[in-house]
Amino acid sequence: MTDATRNASSPQGCSPKDRVLIFDTTLRDGEQCPGATMTFEEKLEVADVLDAMGVDIIEAGFPIASDGDFEAVSAIARRIKRATVAGLARAISADIARAGEAVRHAAKPRIHTFVSTSPIHLEHQMRKSEEEVLEIITKTVAQARNLVEDVEWSAMDATRTPIDYLCRTVEAAIKAGATTINLPDTVGYAVPDEYRAMFRQIRERVPNADKAIFSVHCHNDLGLAVANSLAGIEGGARQIECTINGIGERAGNAALEEVVMALRVRGDVLPYDTGIDASLLTRASKAVSTACSFPVQYNKAIVGRNAFAHESGIHQDGMLKNQTTYEIMTPESVGVSKTSLVMGKHSGRAAFRSKLKEMGYDLGDNQLEDAFTRFKALADRKKHVYDEDIEALVDENLASAHDRVRLVSLTVIAGTRGPQRATMKLDVDGRFVTEEAEGNGPIDAVFNAIKAIVPHEAVLELYDVHAVTEGTDAQAEVTVRLSHEGSSVTGRGADPDTLVSSAKAYLVALNKLIAKGVRLHAQAAAE
Amino acid sequence: MTDATRNASSPQGCSPKDRVLIFDTTLRDGEQCPGATMTFEEKLEVADVLDAMGVDIIEAGFPIASDGDFEAVSAIARRIKRATVAGLARAISADIARAGEAVRHAAKPRIHTFVSTSPIHLEHQMRKSEEEVLEIITKTVAQARNLVEDVEWSAMDATRTPIDYLCRTVEAAIKAGATTINLPDTVGYAVPDEYRAMFRQIRERVPNADKAIFSVHCHNDLGLAVANSLAGIEGGARQIECTINGIGERAGNAALEEVVMALRVRGDVLPYDTGIDASLLTRASKAVSTACSFPVQYNKAIVGRNAFAHESGIHQDGMLKNQTTYEIMTPESVGVSKTSLVMGKHSGRAAFRSKLKEMGYDLGDNQLEDAFTRFKALADRKKHVYDEDIEALVDENLASAHDRVRLVSLTVIAGTRGPQRATMKLDVDGRFVTEEAEGNGPIDAVFNAIKAIVPHEAVLELYDVHAVTEGTDAQAEVTVRLSHEGSSVTGRGADPDTLVSSAKAYLVALNKLIAKGVRLHAQAAAE
Repeated sequence: MTDATRNASSPQGCSPKDRVLIFDTTLRDGEQCPGATMTFEEKLEVADVLDAMGVDIIEAGFPIASDGDFEAVSAIARRIKRATVAGLARAISADIARAGEAVRHAAKPRIHTFVSTSPIHLEHQMRKSEEEVLEIITKTVAQARNLVEDVEWSAMDATRTPIDYLCRTVEAAIKAGATTINLPDTVGYAVPDEYRAMFRQIRERVPNADKAIFSVHCHNDLGLAVANSLAGIEGGARQIECTINGIGERAGNAALEEVVMALRVRGDVLPYDTGIDASLLTRASKAVSTACSFPVQYNKAIVGRNAFAHESGIHQDGMLKNQTTYEIMTPESVGVSKTSLVMGKHSGRAAFRSKLKEMGYDLGDNQLEDAFTRFKALADRKKHVYDEDIEALVDENLASAHDRVRLVSLTVIAGTRGPQRATMKLDVDGRFVTEEAEGNGPIDAVFNAIKAIVPHEAVLELYDVHAVTEGTDAQAEVTVRLSHEGSSVTGRGADPDTLVSSAKAYLVALNKLIAKGVRLHAQAAAE
Repeated sequence: MTDATRNASSPQGCSPKDRVLIFDTTLRDGEQCPGATMTFEEKLEVADVLDAMGVDIIEAGFPIASDGDFEAVSAIARRIKRATVAGLARAISADIARAGEAVRHAAKPRIHTFVSTSPIHLEHQMRKSEEEVLEIITKTVAQARNLVEDVEWSAMDATRTPIDYLCRTVEAAIKAGATTINLPDTVGYAVPDEYRAMFRQIRERVPNADKAIFSVHCHNDLGLAVANSLAGIEGGARQIECTINGIGERAGNAALEEVVMALRVRGDVLPYDTGIDASLLTRASKAVSTACSFPVQYNKAIVGRNAFAHESGIHQDGMLKNQTTYEIMTPESVGVSKTSLVMGKHSGRAAFRSKLKEMGYDLGDNQLEDAFTRFKALADRKKHVYDEDIEALVDENLASAHDRVRLVSLTVIAGTRGPQRATMKLDVDGRFVTEEAEGNGPIDAVFNAIKAIVPHEAVLELYDVHAVTEGTDAQAEVTVRLSHEGSSVTGRGADPDTLVSSAKAYLVALNKLIAKGVRLHAQAAAE
């Protein structure tokens, strides 16, 4: 047991501020929401950021759900040295065994198992009696506890469960060996006073309550996830389950950055500490938003692009006179860098290297050299190269290391007279192939040309373009999501020419599918 | 005094549920946040939706801020018959006079004046003593009350103001004639218990407190805006200031759709009614998101595209068995239509008309005919025409009625070999002009061609593409924001060809600038 958990297990302790554990479920509850699917590599990248920022527990996935999930949890368990790594399991023996296998090599493994406790779930979903569910809890928690020392049990839909029965389930779970008890507001229904009272009652009434750490897990369907999480802490919980950017099922989970900063900014009335390095919040937000291609709304608290922007004259005037008139925290405290050192074609390798470091990238020499070459090529075409440009360029760089299909050249003729035509040359496994294709619009023509060279069945699920920097010579960053037989991948490409970035993004996604085992058809090999 | 306000003014009344007034400030606090600027027409459109959904008070703008703001408030005041229309004014005589003039023709006019009351604002921003501020309150509220019967006064930064002094300011404002007292959490610093207690104390201690309606106004810097708003209501406030999609300064305001649905869904513990027709929430959200080009994050509560989406197998299974297992409100209750009647090239005029009606559009005959022609042209090129396609098409249609510059044809040659070239023919005031231009990327070339034909100084502030429907033949919806001498306009264009939609979007924005009085240069006229 670490210092953190020991402290957290005694909320009545005498330290000036109690420690609250941060349990991040971006890779599980976040990743399971429609469209947020991340690749294996993206999951590792997110896990690294979470570990670096001091998350106490990383819920890495739901191992039984798919081989991909199992592989990701397993790889994260081996990789992460500081945080506890948790795998989710239903109250089913096979689930628990699989979760145990996935987290086995973690420095600190946890199995997180759950079962519904509310009458509505028991009746309609599980079709079990209260007594049957109690037996299931005892059996499954004990099974998990035989595999690992750290077992979390969740009473799914706890906030719609009558308190008497909830007490019995909690007592049974702790008796069977659960070390953390999570009482989620699964459907985002609770209000703060209720949620606080539930924790107080459970902790007062359950005889063995002092043997476990209690945990909050709140959904934001009514906009109350953060308030409920804080209320649960006041009620005696000492673990907060949350996600970066608040992603998750439906309206999402409590946002990690919001609960962490609320505890920090209002430490006067909420005397609880987390172990989070808040200066990494912005970087974590960007990593997750990029990995799952979910835009962060401009006015998102803490990490939105407007969170620290002041437009109205009154506020600007106040800000100039004294920053605290309108700001309760500094942008720097959450990792928003004020210095926007603009790079250009005269910037050298050393400046580029230090810029990357400042932005939090840690590249090997070859990667750095490759990124620098691309940077120079971009700087020749674009007057100012902003942080976002460099980010786009490095991310693209990191993604393309093992690509089997690469863009060599592209020419497109488009406009109102249609059909549009694209002539494309690709390098497929070292061989050049050229094709011409028509389409309904230039993007369609470009994608059809790729399909002519590399025939495949993948479906285009999403296409998005965003000009990442100001000015007409902005780089257009394109996001393409392809799906094939239930597997979905995302590719991004950046270039001043939207059509070129579209081709690049499509190829990144296609290469990911190929890496996942989707076979190339005959044509490319035949030429 | 309407029934609503009479009821609302007696929170201690014996009706089973107290009435809470909804004060929407999307057009003021929302519109003043960086990048959210709306045009005159967009403001009217948003005001119409707000009125239709039953908002009690529409804060239409800050009349002294600019002539544009004055004109918008003034036009909304004349137009809206049901809701109260408010104009904002600082505690300055000229502000109040201007606000009074702007709302003069409203069926129910309100002046909303405010002054800072917190020590930090008094010292750093205003450089006034407490006594001086009390005098200012008395003088300015009285001035406003001489112009209109309905005066709201706000204690800016109330949550950081010592309670004793706050009581004195509130008493002075009510004495001088304020009928609504707003106690905003200007910097988003409060937690629910504090905010509730503040209203309780003020209403208990201020002798004339029963003569005014109290109001909450919460910012979301710590993710607590909705919870604080509800806590304020529990403390005795009966007006909620909020915005559609939660837009506003920094991390935004409490989201209207969230407070309204929290009160509705949790009526058992929050026994308050609003007059809002929740089935228009989705439409209002889209109207605001479109007008200010602010994307709504996918997992935004109530109105995000994932808010009612269930991906994980467990949840889907439960949903199939019984909807209430994972949903606390139905999608239909907030205006998410389940029926997605797909239109195609065989759909006739009647089906198109009924589709438009179902989507909430009410077009005149000419507009309908024009939209139908465009719909047929689109249906010829695209297999399925979705609601979003029709929305894009109608919105574009409505925008282009009085355009002076129109796209005739466009041809673009682009690709990796650059420079890219665009050949464009425009109709400028009925005359055809053709130009060819090069660019750094095809979009740049397209925009350069427009500039060659219609020389202008506007700066491209934002460029965004979103494929609004699935499939490779998706229409690409492009958003372009141009700014010229402090005035900023947004244009949107939709077409299966991204380059054509980019040209259209740019021209919509350019036509808006021209309508605002930006003069065309010589070239177009000369040819």
